[in-house]
Amino acid sequence: MSQPMISLALLHHPVLNKTGETIGSAVTNLDLHDISRAARTYGVNRYYVATPYEDQHELIGEIIDHWQTGHGARANPARKEALAIVQPVKDLETIVAELTEGHDQKVFVVATSARYHDNEISYGALQNKIEQKIPVLLLFGTAHGLAPEIMKQADAVLPPIQADSDYNHLSVRSAVSIILDRLLGNK
Amino acid sequence: MSQPMISLALLHHPVLNKTGETIGSAVTNLDLHDISRAARTYGVNRYYVATPYEDQHELIGEIIDHWQTGHGARANPARKEALAIVQPVKDLETIVAELTEGHDQKVFVVATSARYHDNEISYGALQNKIEQKIPVLLLFGTAHGLAPEIMKQADAVLPPIQADSDYNHLSVRSAVSIILDRLLGNK
Repeated sequence: MSQPMISLALLHHPVLNKTGETIGSAVTNLDLHDISRAARTYGVNRYYVATPYEDQHELIGEIIDHWQTGHGARANPARKEALAIVQPVKDLETIVAELTEGHDQKVFVVATSARYHDNEISYGALQNKIEQKIPVLLLFGTAHGLAPEIMKQADAVLPPIQADSDYNHLSVRSAVSIILDRLLGNK
Repeated sequence: MSQPMISLALLHHPVLNKTGETIGSAVTNLDLHDISRAARTYGVNRYYVATPYEDQHELIGEIIDHWQTGHGARANPARKEALAIVQPVKDLETIVAELTEGHDQKVFVVATSARYHDNEISYGALQNKIEQKIPVLLLFGTAHGLAPEIMKQADAVLPPIQADSDYNHLSVRSAVSIILDRLLGNK
Protein backbone atom coordinates (compact mmCIF):
# COMPACT_ATOMS: atom_id res chain seq x y z
CA MET A 1 0.00 0.00 0.00
CA SER A 2 1.69 3.23 -1.10
CA GLN A 3 1.42 6.59 0.65
CA PRO A 4 -1.40 6.19 3.15
CA MET A 5 -3.05 9.57 3.86
CA ILE A 6 -3.25 9.02 7.57
CA SER A 7 -2.67 11.40 10.46
CA LEU A 8 -2.78 10.83 14.17
CA ALA A 9 -3.70 13.15 17.03
CA LEU A 10 -3.07 12.83 20.76
CA LEU A 11 -5.53 15.02 22.63
CA HIS A 12 -4.72 16.40 26.10
CA HIS A 13 -8.00 18.30 26.31
CA PRO A 14 -10.91 17.62 26.58
CA VAL A 15 -10.24 14.22 28.16
CA LEU A 16 -11.70 12.40 31.16
CA ASN A 17 -10.16 11.79 34.57
CA LYS A 18 -10.83 8.60 36.51
CA THR A 19 -14.08 9.90 37.99
CA GLY A 20 -15.37 10.87 34.52
CA GLU A 21 -14.86 14.65 34.77
CA THR A 22 -13.53 16.57 31.78
CA ILE A 23 -9.97 17.79 32.33
CA GLY A 24 -6.82 18.87 30.51
CA SER A 25 -3.83 16.56 31.03
CA ALA A 26 -0.08 17.27 30.98
CA VAL A 27 2.10 16.48 27.96
CA THR A 28 4.61 13.70 28.68
CA ASN A 29 7.99 13.24 27.06
CA LEU A 30 7.48 9.53 26.35
CA ASP A 31 4.20 10.15 24.51
CA LEU A 32 6.12 12.34 22.07
CA HIS A 33 8.97 9.85 21.60
CA ASP A 34 7.22 6.47 21.56
CA ILE A 35 4.25 7.60 19.47
CA SER A 36 6.31 9.55 16.91
CA ARG A 37 8.56 6.50 16.44
CA ALA A 38 5.57 4.19 15.92
CA ALA A 39 3.84 6.71 13.63
CA ARG A 40 6.98 7.20 11.52
CA THR A 41 7.48 3.40 11.27
CA TYR A 42 3.96 2.92 9.86
CA GLY A 43 4.10 5.82 7.38
CA VAL A 44 1.82 8.23 9.27
CA ASN A 45 2.12 11.71 7.72
CA ARG A 46 1.62 13.86 10.77
CA TYR A 47 1.40 13.38 14.55
CA TYR A 48 -0.59 16.24 16.09
CA VAL A 49 -0.12 16.87 19.82
CA ALA A 50 -3.13 18.89 20.93
CA THR A 51 -3.26 21.03 24.07
CA PRO A 52 -4.79 24.47 24.66
CA TYR A 53 -2.15 25.39 27.27
CA GLU A 54 0.62 27.78 26.21
CA ASP A 55 3.19 26.43 28.72
CA GLN A 56 2.65 22.92 27.37
CA HIS A 57 3.36 24.18 23.85
CA GLU A 58 6.64 25.60 25.17
CA LEU A 59 7.50 22.23 26.72
CA ILE A 60 6.78 20.40 23.44
CA GLY A 61 8.89 22.97 21.60
CA GLU A 62 11.84 22.47 23.97
CA ILE A 63 11.73 18.69 23.66
CA ILE A 64 11.50 18.75 19.88
CA ASP A 65 14.25 21.40 19.60
CA HIS A 66 16.65 19.30 21.66
CA TRP A 67 16.31 16.41 19.21
CA GLN A 68 15.98 18.52 16.05
CA THR A 69 18.85 20.99 16.46
CA GLY A 70 20.51 20.33 19.83
CA HIS A 71 22.83 17.62 21.09
CA GLY A 72 20.11 15.02 20.52
CA ALA A 73 20.12 15.58 16.75
CA ARG A 74 23.79 14.55 16.49
CA ALA A 75 23.56 11.75 19.07
CA ASN A 76 20.41 10.18 17.64
CA PRO A 77 19.45 11.08 14.04
CA ALA A 78 16.67 8.43 14.05
CA ARG A 79 14.95 10.27 16.90
CA LYS A 80 15.27 13.54 14.97
CA GLU A 81 13.51 11.95 12.00
CA ALA A 82 10.64 10.61 14.11
CA LEU A 83 10.03 13.87 15.97
CA ALA A 84 9.95 15.78 12.65
CA ILE A 85 6.36 14.59 12.14
CA VAL A 86 5.19 16.02 15.50
CA GLN A 87 3.07 19.16 15.24
CA PRO A 88 1.78 20.94 18.36
CA VAL A 89 -1.74 22.34 17.90
CA LYS A 90 -4.41 23.98 20.02
CA ASP A 91 -7.37 21.68 19.42
CA LEU A 92 -9.22 19.26 17.15
CA GLU A 93 -10.83 22.07 15.13
CA THR A 94 -7.37 23.37 14.15
CA ILE A 95 -6.30 19.90 12.99
CA VAL A 96 -9.43 19.31 10.91
CA ALA A 97 -9.12 22.79 9.36
CA GLU A 98 -5.48 22.12 8.43
CA LEU A 99 -6.27 18.69 6.95
CA THR A 100 -9.23 20.10 4.99
CA GLU A 101 -7.72 23.32 3.63
CA GLY A 102 -6.82 23.07 -0.05
CA HIS A 103 -8.02 19.46 -0.30
CA ASP A 104 -11.00 18.16 -2.27
CA GLN A 105 -11.78 15.39 0.19
CA LYS A 106 -13.10 15.78 3.72
CA VAL A 107 -10.92 14.05 6.32
CA PHE A 108 -12.55 11.00 7.95
CA VAL A 109 -12.19 11.44 11.71
CA VAL A 110 -11.92 8.20 13.70
CA ALA A 111 -11.93 8.17 17.49
CA THR A 112 -10.50 5.38 19.67
CA SER A 113 -11.82 4.21 23.02
CA ALA A 114 -11.51 1.47 25.63
CA ARG A 115 -15.32 1.16 25.50
CA TYR A 116 -17.84 0.32 22.75
CA HIS A 117 -19.69 3.16 20.99
CA ASP A 118 -22.63 3.28 18.59
CA ASN A 119 -20.99 4.55 15.41
CA GLU A 120 -18.39 1.79 15.23
CA ILE A 121 -16.18 1.13 12.21
CA SER A 122 -14.34 -2.20 11.92
CA TYR A 123 -10.58 -2.37 11.31
CA GLY A 124 -11.29 -3.94 7.91
CA ALA A 125 -13.70 -1.19 6.85
CA LEU A 126 -11.21 1.50 7.90
CA GLN A 127 -8.41 -0.30 6.03
CA ASN A 128 -10.61 -0.12 2.90
CA LYS A 129 -10.98 3.63 3.28
CA ILE A 130 -7.21 4.02 3.71
CA GLU A 131 -6.60 1.91 0.60
CA GLN A 132 -9.08 4.11 -1.32
CA LYS A 133 -6.86 7.10 -0.37
CA ILE A 134 -9.52 8.69 1.80
CA PRO A 135 -7.65 10.94 4.27
CA VAL A 136 -8.03 9.55 7.80
CA LEU A 137 -7.36 11.21 11.16
CA LEU A 138 -7.02 8.87 14.17
CA LEU A 139 -7.82 10.41 17.56
CA PHE A 140 -6.31 9.17 20.81
CA GLY A 141 -7.00 10.53 24.29
CA THR A 142 -4.63 10.85 27.24
CA ALA A 143 -5.72 10.31 30.89
CA HIS A 144 -8.91 8.19 30.94
CA GLY A 145 -9.82 8.81 27.32
CA LEU A 146 -11.52 11.28 24.98
CA ALA A 147 -14.39 13.37 26.37
CA PRO A 148 -17.94 12.80 24.99
CA GLU A 149 -17.85 16.10 23.04
CA ILE A 150 -14.90 14.73 21.02
CA MET A 151 -16.58 11.34 20.49
CA LYS A 152 -19.58 13.20 19.02
CA GLN A 153 -17.38 15.06 16.53
CA ALA A 154 -15.86 11.82 15.19
CA ASP A 155 -17.26 10.23 12.02
CA ALA A 156 -16.72 6.76 13.56
CA VAL A 157 -15.11 4.94 16.49
CA LEU A 158 -12.81 1.89 16.35
CA PRO A 159 -13.80 -1.01 18.62
CA PRO A 160 -11.79 -1.32 21.85
CA ILE A 161 -8.61 -3.42 21.80
CA GLN A 162 -8.92 -6.79 23.53
CA ALA A 163 -12.31 -5.90 25.03
CA ASP A 164 -12.90 -9.45 26.26
CA SER A 165 -9.82 -9.35 28.50
CA ASP A 166 -10.44 -9.16 32.24
CA TYR A 167 -7.87 -6.34 32.27
CA ASN A 168 -8.31 -3.39 29.92
CA HIS A 169 -5.80 -0.71 30.85
CA LEU A 170 -3.30 -0.37 28.02
CA SER A 171 -1.14 2.74 27.92
CA VAL A 172 -2.01 5.13 25.10
CA ARG A 173 1.47 4.39 23.72
CA SER A 174 0.59 0.68 23.47
CA ALA A 175 -2.86 1.42 22.03
CA VAL A 176 -1.43 3.63 19.27
CA SER A 177 1.19 1.01 18.37
CA ILE A 178 -1.36 -1.83 18.20
CA ILE A 179 -3.93 0.15 16.20
CA LEU A 180 -1.32 1.31 13.66
CA ASP A 181 -0.17 -2.30 13.25
CA ARG A 182 -3.75 -3.55 12.82
CA LEU A 183 -4.49 -0.89 10.17
CA LEU A 184 -1.15 -0.52 8.38
CA GLY A 185 1.03 -3.48 9.39
CA ASN A 186 2.51 -5.82 6.81
CA LYS A 187 2.04 -9.25 8.34
CA MET B 1 -8.08 -19.48 23.41
CA SER B 2 -7.99 -20.27 27.12
CA GLN B 3 -4.98 -19.88 29.41
CA PRO B 4 -2.03 -19.31 27.10
CA MET B 5 1.18 -20.49 28.76
CA ILE B 6 3.19 -17.52 27.70
CA SER B 7 5.82 -15.53 29.55
CA LEU B 8 7.76 -12.47 28.53
CA ALA B 9 11.25 -11.31 29.45
CA LEU B 10 12.88 -7.91 29.04
CA LEU B 11 16.65 -8.32 29.10
CA HIS B 12 18.95 -5.47 30.20
CA HIS B 13 22.08 -7.60 29.78
CA PRO B 14 23.62 -8.78 27.48
CA VAL B 15 22.30 -6.26 24.95
CA LEU B 16 23.96 -4.17 22.23
CA ASN B 17 24.69 -0.45 22.17
CA LYS B 18 24.49 1.55 18.97
CA THR B 19 28.01 0.65 17.91
CA GLY B 20 27.29 -3.06 18.40
CA GLU B 21 29.18 -3.59 21.65
CA THR B 22 27.68 -5.77 24.39
CA ILE B 23 26.52 -3.73 27.37
CA GLY B 24 24.14 -3.74 30.33
CA SER B 25 21.39 -1.10 30.18
CA ALA B 26 19.50 0.70 32.95
CA VAL B 27 16.00 -0.31 34.01
CA THR B 28 13.39 2.35 33.16
CA ASN B 29 10.16 3.02 35.01
CA LEU B 30 8.04 3.13 31.85
CA ASP B 31 9.28 -0.27 30.67
CA LEU B 32 7.87 -1.74 33.88
CA HIS B 33 4.52 0.07 33.63
CA ASP B 34 3.72 -0.03 29.90
CA ILE B 35 4.89 -3.59 29.34
CA SER B 36 3.21 -5.02 32.46
CA ARG B 37 -0.08 -3.38 31.43
CA ALA B 38 0.18 -4.81 27.88
CA ALA B 39 1.23 -8.24 29.20
CA ARG B 40 -1.63 -8.34 31.70
CA THR B 41 -4.14 -7.27 29.01
CA TYR B 42 -3.12 -10.17 26.74
CA GLY B 43 -3.06 -12.81 29.48
CA VAL B 44 0.71 -13.21 29.82
CA ASN B 45 1.51 -15.21 32.97
CA ARG B 46 4.77 -13.60 33.98
CA TYR B 47 6.85 -10.58 32.95
CA TYR B 48 10.50 -11.18 33.87
CA VAL B 49 12.75 -8.13 34.14
CA ALA B 50 16.32 -9.39 33.83
CA THR B 51 19.39 -7.53 35.03
CA PRO B 52 22.52 -8.79 36.81
CA TYR B 53 22.96 -5.51 38.73
CA GLU B 54 21.98 -5.47 42.39
CA ASP B 55 21.17 -1.73 42.47
CA GLN B 56 18.79 -2.18 39.55
CA HIS B 57 17.00 -4.93 41.47
CA GLU B 58 16.58 -2.47 44.34
CA LEU B 59 15.12 0.12 41.92
CA ILE B 60 12.65 -2.40 40.49
CA GLY B 61 11.68 -3.41 44.04
CA GLU B 62 11.04 0.23 45.05
CA ILE B 63 8.87 0.91 42.00
CA ILE B 64 6.82 -2.25 42.44
CA ASP B 65 6.44 -1.67 46.19
CA HIS B 66 5.07 1.82 45.65
CA TRP B 67 2.27 0.43 43.48
CA GLN B 68 1.77 -2.82 45.40
CA THR B 69 1.62 -1.58 48.97
CA GLY B 70 2.22 2.18 48.99
CA HIS B 71 0.10 5.17 48.03
CA GLY B 72 -0.02 3.94 44.43
CA ALA B 73 -1.92 0.77 45.39
CA ARG B 74 -4.82 2.81 46.75
CA ALA B 75 -4.70 5.48 44.03
CA ASN B 76 -4.50 3.06 41.12
CA PRO B 77 -5.52 -0.58 41.78
CA ALA B 78 -5.29 -1.38 38.03
CA ARG B 79 -1.59 -0.53 38.10
CA LYS B 80 -1.14 -2.76 41.16
CA GLU B 81 -2.69 -5.66 39.27
CA ALA B 82 -0.46 -5.16 36.23
CA LEU B 83 2.77 -4.89 38.23
CA ALA B 84 1.90 -8.07 40.15
CA ILE B 85 3.11 -10.12 37.16
CA VAL B 86 6.58 -8.45 37.17
CA GLN B 87 9.40 -10.63 38.45
CA PRO B 88 12.96 -9.33 38.70
CA VAL B 89 15.57 -11.96 37.82
CA LYS B 90 19.32 -12.14 37.25
CA ASP B 91 19.49 -13.63 33.76
CA LEU B 92 17.95 -15.81 31.06
CA GLU B 93 19.27 -19.02 32.63
CA THR B 94 17.32 -18.28 35.83
CA ILE B 95 14.12 -17.71 33.85
CA VAL B 96 14.46 -20.92 31.83
CA ALA B 97 15.23 -22.90 34.99
CA GLU B 98 12.12 -21.50 36.72
CA LEU B 99 9.88 -22.22 33.73
CA THR B 100 11.27 -25.74 33.36
CA GLU B 101 11.32 -26.87 37.01
CA GLY B 102 8.49 -29.25 37.82
CA HIS B 103 7.10 -29.15 34.28
CA ASP B 104 7.05 -31.97 31.75
CA GLN B 105 7.43 -29.71 28.78
CA LYS B 106 10.50 -27.71 27.80
CA VAL B 107 9.79 -24.00 27.39
CA PHE B 108 10.07 -22.79 23.77
CA VAL B 109 12.30 -19.69 23.83
CA VAL B 110 11.56 -17.12 21.12
CA ALA B 111 13.79 -14.08 20.57
CA THR B 112 12.67 -10.85 18.90
CA SER B 113 14.80 -8.58 16.75
CA ALA B 114 14.66 -5.60 14.37
CA ARG B 115 16.68 -7.71 11.92
CA TYR B 116 16.13 -11.03 10.14
CA HIS B 117 17.76 -14.17 11.55
CA ASP B 118 18.18 -17.70 10.26
CA ASN B 119 16.02 -19.69 12.65
CA GLU B 120 12.85 -17.70 11.99
CA ILE B 121 9.40 -18.73 13.17
CA SER B 122 6.31 -17.10 11.66
CA TYR B 123 3.61 -15.51 13.80
CA GLY B 124 1.18 -18.19 12.60
CA ALA B 125 3.50 -21.07 13.52
CA LEU B 126 4.08 -19.59 16.98
CA GLN B 127 0.32 -19.11 17.44
CA ASN B 128 -0.10 -22.82 16.72
CA LYS B 129 2.39 -23.71 19.44
CA ILE B 130 0.58 -21.44 21.91
CA GLU B 131 -2.75 -23.04 20.99
CA GLN B 132 -1.18 -26.47 21.54
CA LYS B 133 -0.34 -25.30 25.11
CA ILE B 134 3.40 -25.43 24.52
CA PRO B 135 4.93 -23.05 27.10
CA VAL B 136 6.49 -20.08 25.29
CA LEU B 137 8.95 -17.46 26.55
CA LEU B 138 9.24 -14.28 24.46
CA LEU B 139 12.56 -12.40 24.77
CA PHE B 140 12.89 -8.66 24.22
CA GLY B 141 16.08 -6.61 24.42
CA THR B 142 16.56 -3.06 25.67
CA ALA B 143 19.05 -0.60 24.10
CA HIS B 144 19.86 -1.73 20.53
CA GLY B 145 18.62 -5.26 21.00
CA LEU B 146 19.61 -8.70 22.28
CA ALA B 147 23.28 -9.70 22.07
CA PRO B 148 24.28 -12.57 19.72
CA GLU B 149 24.89 -14.93 22.66
CA ILE B 150 21.18 -14.61 23.58
CA MET B 151 20.04 -15.04 19.97
CA LYS B 152 21.99 -18.32 19.88
CA GLN B 153 20.22 -19.63 23.00
CA ALA B 154 16.76 -19.02 21.49
CA ASP B 155 14.87 -21.88 19.82
CA ALA B 156 13.57 -19.46 17.18
CA VAL B 157 13.34 -15.76 16.28
CA LEU B 158 10.22 -13.83 15.21
CA PRO B 159 10.58 -11.78 12.00
CA PRO B 160 11.11 -8.04 12.49
CA ILE B 161 8.02 -5.81 12.70
CA GLN B 162 7.40 -3.71 9.59
CA ALA B 163 10.79 -4.58 8.11
CA ASP B 164 9.94 -2.98 4.74
CA SER B 165 9.46 0.44 6.34
CA ASP B 166 12.14 3.06 5.61
CA TYR B 167 12.14 3.71 9.37
CA ASN B 168 12.66 0.83 11.77
CA HIS B 169 13.12 2.22 15.28
CA LEU B 170 10.14 1.23 17.40
CA SER B 171 10.47 1.52 21.16
CA VAL B 172 10.64 -1.84 22.95
CA ARG B 173 7.31 -0.86 24.58
CA SER B 174 5.69 -0.55 21.14
CA ALA B 175 7.33 -3.76 19.90
CA VAL B 176 6.04 -5.78 22.88
CA SER B 177 2.51 -4.39 22.44
CA ILE B 178 2.41 -5.15 18.72
CA ILE B 179 3.85 -8.66 19.05
CA LEU B 180 1.42 -9.59 21.86
CA ASP B 181 -1.46 -8.33 19.70
CA ARG B 182 -0.25 -10.31 16.67
CA LEU B 183 0.09 -13.51 18.71
CA LEU B 184 -2.77 -13.22 21.20
CA GLY B 185 -5.10 -10.46 19.97
CA ASN B 186 -8.78 -11.09 19.32
CA LYS B 187 -9.44 -9.21 16.10
